[in-house]
Amino acid sequence: MQGLWFKEVEEGRRFLIKIAPGEALQGRLVEFAHAAKVQYAVLLSAVGSVQHVRFRGIKTGAKLPLTAPRIHVHEVEGPLELLGLTGNIFPDDKGEIDCHLHVLAGKSSGEALGGHLFDARVFATCEIVLAEIRAEGVERHVSKAGGISTVFIDAKRT
Amino acid sequence: MQGLWFKEVEEGRRFLIKIAPGEALQGRLVEFAHAAKVQYAVLLSAVGSVQHVRFRGIKTGAKLPLTAPRIHVHEVEGPLELLGLTGNIFPDDKGEIDCHLHVLAGKSSGEALGGHLFDARVFATCEIVLAEIRAEGVERHVSKAGGISTVFIDAKRT
Amino acid sequence: MQGLWFKEVEEGRRFLIKIAPGEALQGRLVEFAHAAKVQYAVLLSAVGSVQHVRFRGIKTGAKLPLTAPRIHVHEVEGPLELLGLTGNIFPDDKGEIDCHLHVLAGKSSGEALGGHLFDARVFATCEIVLAEIRAEGVERHVSKAGGISTVFIDAKRT
Repeated sequence: MQGLWFKEVEEGRRFLIKIAPGEALQGRLVEFAHAAKVQYAVLLSAVGSVQHVRFRGIKTGAKLPLTAPRIHVHEVEGPLELLGLTGNIFPDDKGEIDCHLHVLAGKSSGEALGGHLFDARVFATCEIVLAEIRAEGVERHVSKAGGISTVFIDAKRT
Repeated sequence: MQGLWFKEVEEGRRFLIKIAPGEALQGRLVEFAHAAKVQYAVLLSAVGSVQHVRFRGIKTGAKLPLTAPRIHVHEVEGPLELLGLTGNIFPDDKGEIDCHLHVLAGKSSGEALGGHLFDARVFATCEIVLAEIRAEGVERHVSKAGGISTVFIDAKRT
Repeated sequence: MQGLWFKEVEEGRRFLIKIAPGEALQGRLVEFAHAAKVQYAVLLSAVGSVQHVRFRGIKTGAKLPLTAPRIHVHEVEGPLELLGLTGNIFPDDKGEIDCHLHVLAGKSSGEALGGHLFDARVFATCEIVLAEIRAEGVERHVSKAGGISTVFIDAKRT
């Protein structure tokens, strides 16, 4: 079995977070992580609405590594219903708190948009439930082959 | 740090829920919460299919507070694959069980739709995993500034 | 209350899983479940990118049971940002590990696609957090009325 790694992790604390209108979603999550001393966490739920959403899609047919000409950056003013915010908070290779978040948001027409989130501002409200995990030995590094920052697990390939 | 609130909450029970074809999704979740005496919960997973989906998008360029002329109500007959159901169950200001759910659903064409859910009927099946949380002191009230019902956390702004 | 079943389930272990570029998402998850001896689990989070995504939508106006003429199979080469992967791992009626997954993925244009997942290959990375649950007495069988495989809970209808 190549290409698969896994590690049992323990659950830590669980948090309910609310971010107010006009605030930067990603920036506030990082501030939360500092204030609560959370190093590793996974988002369980996010509901609310957002505006000024900057996110990335990958160009059709793109190859690895992901470089700037192979992605599309979108900026959507909105406001949009926030339909999903998936991802994790893990330290980067300098030990700094780093979020990897993908966003899903609904337009006025009901159509859903989404991609790798750069940033967004909260519109009417944002309610998040987040679970801390104990994942010592897990770090996020840039993968040269992939051109992206991803998690590395210090476990045997199984 | 203004505009950010958070609170550590304890995890309670965890439930597996199945809702049968033809049943009202939101109504059944509220009945579940009554039957299981669940006051605070967050949806962890929902998979299945839905029809007669009523949901809301926010009009492009809308300002707060969210009023009826600033939203679009969509009714999609479907059936649609249920791709996401995110949100929480918290009591409202009268102590009644109240769901705040956002839906994501896939059309025949593969395109995804979604928004703030008013209601939907289960089509072929609906399997939900839900985590109770202990969140005393958290209530949902209408925000006058936002025009929406949102969670208020009795914690210091941090 | 007809049409609603629920069961309290205990949480088991929690796993962080990483799947490498080029690997089959569904196949690797099944291998993980075998290797870690996980029988029942729910996906909490998945973030990354995918290509060669095969998934199903339900034709508009379709009736139950879901038969081949009532569904659309889509194959999207991508690559696409992985925006959601929702579902569970439960044994089928032969006791074999079986995944029920719905996928959400973002195109270069920012539009989101999704449906019932058949398979996909990981593009740049895939990071999954999964919670084992203890759900003895819960099995997945084919529902004759629905034409689909779904979870049956050995609890009284409540």
